[in-house]
Amino acid sequence: MISFYTWTTPNGRKVAILLEELGLAYESISVNLGRNEQFTPGFLAISPNNKIPAIVDHGAEGGPLSVFESGAILTYLAERHGRFLPAGGAARYKTLEWLNWQMGGLGPMLGQLGYFEKFAQEKSAAASARFLAEADRLLSVMDKRLAESRYLAGDEYSIADIAAYPWAVTASTFLAEVLAERIGTKPALLRWMELVGSRPAVQRGMR
Amino acid sequence: MISFYTWTTPNGRKVAILLEELGLAYESISVNLGRNEQFTPGFLAISPNNKIPAIVDHGAEGGPLSVFESGAILTYLAERHGRFLPAGGAARYKTLEWLNWQMGGLGPMLGQLGYFEKFAQEKSAAASARFLAEADRLLSVMDKRLAESRYLAGDEYSIADIAAYPWAVTASTFLAEVLAERIGTKPALLRWMELVGSRPAVQRGMR
Repeated sequence: MISFYTWTTPNGRKVAILLEELGLAYESISVNLGRNEQFTPGFLAISPNNKIPAIVDHGAEGGPLSVFESGAILTYLAERHGRFLPAGGAARYKTLEWLNWQMGGLGPMLGQLGYFEKFAQEKSAAASARFLAEADRLLSVMDKRLAESRYLAGDEYSIADIAAYPWAVTASTFLAEVLAERIGTKPALLRWMELVGSRPAVQRGMR
Repeated sequence: MISFYTWTTPNGRKVAILLEELGLAYESISVNLGRNEQFTPGFLAISPNNKIPAIVDHGAEGGPLSVFESGAILTYLAERHGRFLPAGGAARYKTLEWLNWQMGGLGPMLGQLGYFEKFAQEKSAAASARFLAEADRLLSVMDKRLAESRYLAGDEYSIADIAAYPWAVTASTFLAEVLAERIGTKPALLRWMELVGSRPAVQRGMR
């Protein structure tokens, strides 16, 4: 059994998708960010960076194991169950390239764009312009990659796709006001979003 | 032989440190960001996100392998040479937790702070305040972790430390104007910076 600490954010949905893809038994525990529940001592013991998602795998070898940071959780679950991340060779490192690209680029930059567009009490034209340009650049990198490759890491669906998909959906829905037109000019990205979004486990994970 | 594409940035230095720690033969190839050399077709074939660092391992199993994204490069080299990232168990995932924390948090947030403090043509008080608060929060998370643990992942020096160290140095030098005072109140972080900074390979990698 896995305890899955989450909230309705793209980073939480990555882990939900992989849990569904792997068909694992898990209980979802809501950490209500609106009520600052991420700062309770019990949660900080599992996730010292006070962010969701985090998991505790009660059936891990050697006793219960907690993991925080979505990229680390995806890697842990993929390695433990031997799926969606090749064990070696070039395909493994193509997967880790695009996973790290999502973790260090697409996620943080779309996150900052969302903050300045939607949440910030004090707006900033300079910040909005910077993060809009960066979001568009990153989505273009993704479109170019997906024009030459079925999935982000290559021929096979992987944790790199699982990591990027909820952020691509956020870009085209939550941030549609500023990004919809730019996404509309990226055919390979749209093709991939349909392909990944048609998977039943992805649909369950996104709910 | 490894071709190492880099420039004098914290993300480049992470890889330089690990190459030095592993004692590998490599050639450094400067990609001058000031001259936009990251947009040449030759470099984009290796690093489609037009960022350094990137490597080509000419001696990889199965033929030359290119890897971009510092987190993926650190993982690749650590796995290939069996050092600084345990092969399994809790210690492996503690290392990947803090590596991902650096990739998705400390790096991007200090990077944005640096941009708005040092490079942006148009300053933004709102953006500066946000990224200063976020930088301080992340450095406090690190300090708290290092008050209970010798290294970020636990008792052993790992690629999590190698990833975070150049950013901690950037915070205390390049960004000293806004962060020095805040770092001065974080004793465990200072203790760790001395410990990691005393390693000869780290000193060579930082040059």
